[in-house]
Amino acid sequence: MSIDQISLKLHKKLKGKLETRSKIKISNKKILSAVYTPGVAAVSKAIAVDSKLAKLYTIKGNTIAVISDGSAVLGLGNIGPLAALPVMEGKAALFKEFANLDAFPICLETQDTEEIIKTVKNISPVFGGINLEDISAPRCFEIEKRLMAELDIPVMHDDQRGTATVVLAALINALKIKKLKFNQARIVVNGAGAAGTAVAKAIYAYGGTQIIVCDSHGVIHSERTDLTPEKKMMAGWLKPEIKNINTLEDALVGADIFVGVSKANLLTPIMIK
Amino acid sequence: MSIDQISLKLHKKLKGKLETRSKIKISNKKILSAVYTPGVAAVSKAIAVDSKLAKLYTIKGNTIAVISDGSAVLGLGNIGPLAALPVMEGKAALFKEFANLDAFPICLETQDTEEIIKTVKNISPVFGGINLEDISAPRCFEIEKRLMAELDIPVMHDDQRGTATVVLAALINALKIKKLKFNQARIVVNGAGAAGTAVAKAIYAYGGTQIIVCDSHGVIHSERTDLTPEKKMMAGWLKPEIKNINTLEDALVGADIFVGVSKANLLTPIMIK
Repeated sequence: MSIDQISLKLHKKLKGKLETRSKIKISNKKILSAVYTPGVAAVSKAIAVDSKLAKLYTIKGNTIAVISDGSAVLGLGNIGPLAALPVMEGKAALFKEFANLDAFPICLETQDTEEIIKTVKNISPVFGGINLEDISAPRCFEIEKRLMAELDIPVMHDDQRGTATVVLAALINALKIKKLKFNQARIVVNGAGAAGTAVAKAIYAYGGTQIIVCDSHGVIHSERTDLTPEKKMMAGWLKPEIKNINTLEDALVGADIFVGVSKANLLTPIMIK
Repeated sequence: MSIDQISLKLHKKLKGKLETRSKIKISNKKILSAVYTPGVAAVSKAIAVDSKLAKLYTIKGNTIAVISDGSAVLGLGNIGPLAALPVMEGKAALFKEFANLDAFPICLETQDTEEIIKTVKNISPVFGGINLEDISAPRCFEIEKRLMAELDIPVMHDDQRGTATVVLAALINALKIKKLKFNQARIVVNGAGAAGTAVAKAIYAYGGTQIIVCDSHGVIHSERTDLTPEKKMMAGWLKPEIKNINTLEDALVGADIFVGVSKANLLTPIMIK
């Protein structure tokens, strides 16, 4: 069986990979009274007086929302919230299995930036942190930035921060082996979506000075008139001597590092020679 | 230890009563590939083609949202979303323990009717049903009605339907024992919030014809000028000969059944005589 067939069979058998469970077995009336009414009223009253106690007494202390609008799922694109659900469920399962964090998937019926921000804010009381997932660029930049500013819990867009963290770690090791400093390496990032932009920003923040970012129209430089604010910023990092290049192929001449975060098969064997 | 102390201690020890878990142990790379990428893409693609498959392949088939805005929690009143969380978590635990349904608490930062409706609609893709909880009247009537009409999954406000179902079942048995038919029994419902209104509606739907509903201003009759649409409807059920009464005490003269769904200690021993 192919991995696709195995996965379809597994999902059908499990009927969803995630379950919610009571941490305590409600086996008698006394436990029921402590878990639910009347006992739970004492807990509610305590939190009403001091809201900080919610992290101590409720799931807020260990629960992450995995939130997507289904607009940029895996390599599949804008497949919507229902089709995104198996992915967000899977991410919640990973949170539990690898970090012992309780996580719950929230797939949104809307792809409107302001509505997403409002909805996430409205459901935020239950969660200790927000993990945004598979939201398309450039909307994802505004959504993450606003939620970070307006919520009092940690917020991160995984496609940006997660990918950037892993790529930066790999580059630190690769450059050690190559005995090159960050500011000596010419680094080409192909792709300027959520992941590519965040990767480039991470490299820049770590000391990279020769960064060339390409999107589907070629090298991002300041003479282009089609740039978003994020792309304008990256164009500003380009050194003068590498400004007169336009294609990915041009960019790769003399490059030490290639980071592919766009669609597959854009880098050809000829370019590497 | 009092039940309050037991409950506080239990909640502190458990750090939240609910957990999310992966149904499958991710113990090797093959399982990881089936649960998450690349295998999960086959599941997402199948759902993108036929959205009905979401119920078969994801948690949507067995998951309930327990949603509150914290405006009418237990007997505590408007204590807000964080203080409501231990109650909604408890309800989710009951769903799992007693009905094997996965449920997740959603406590809302907003108490605005339109914002609640929009937020619930926005997060609805993940869920197979919506259980509204502890939302104050009369807002709860509009919220439930609109969500029922605008969503394609079952929606119910537990304080209405849950309470009404239990009370109606008790009345059916009580009247059997008393050998009275529903239309022969004079039934007084004290309280016209979410629960009282739904109880009265259930009794009426089941064949009750002598129903007197009281709120904090006394008997609800059509000459009053302070009635909401729901209360106007209930006033319309009053038989002409019982319209000339105003207080709970008046209503109880000749009554067969008293249902108390307001605050405690309003029915006094003298009234029962």
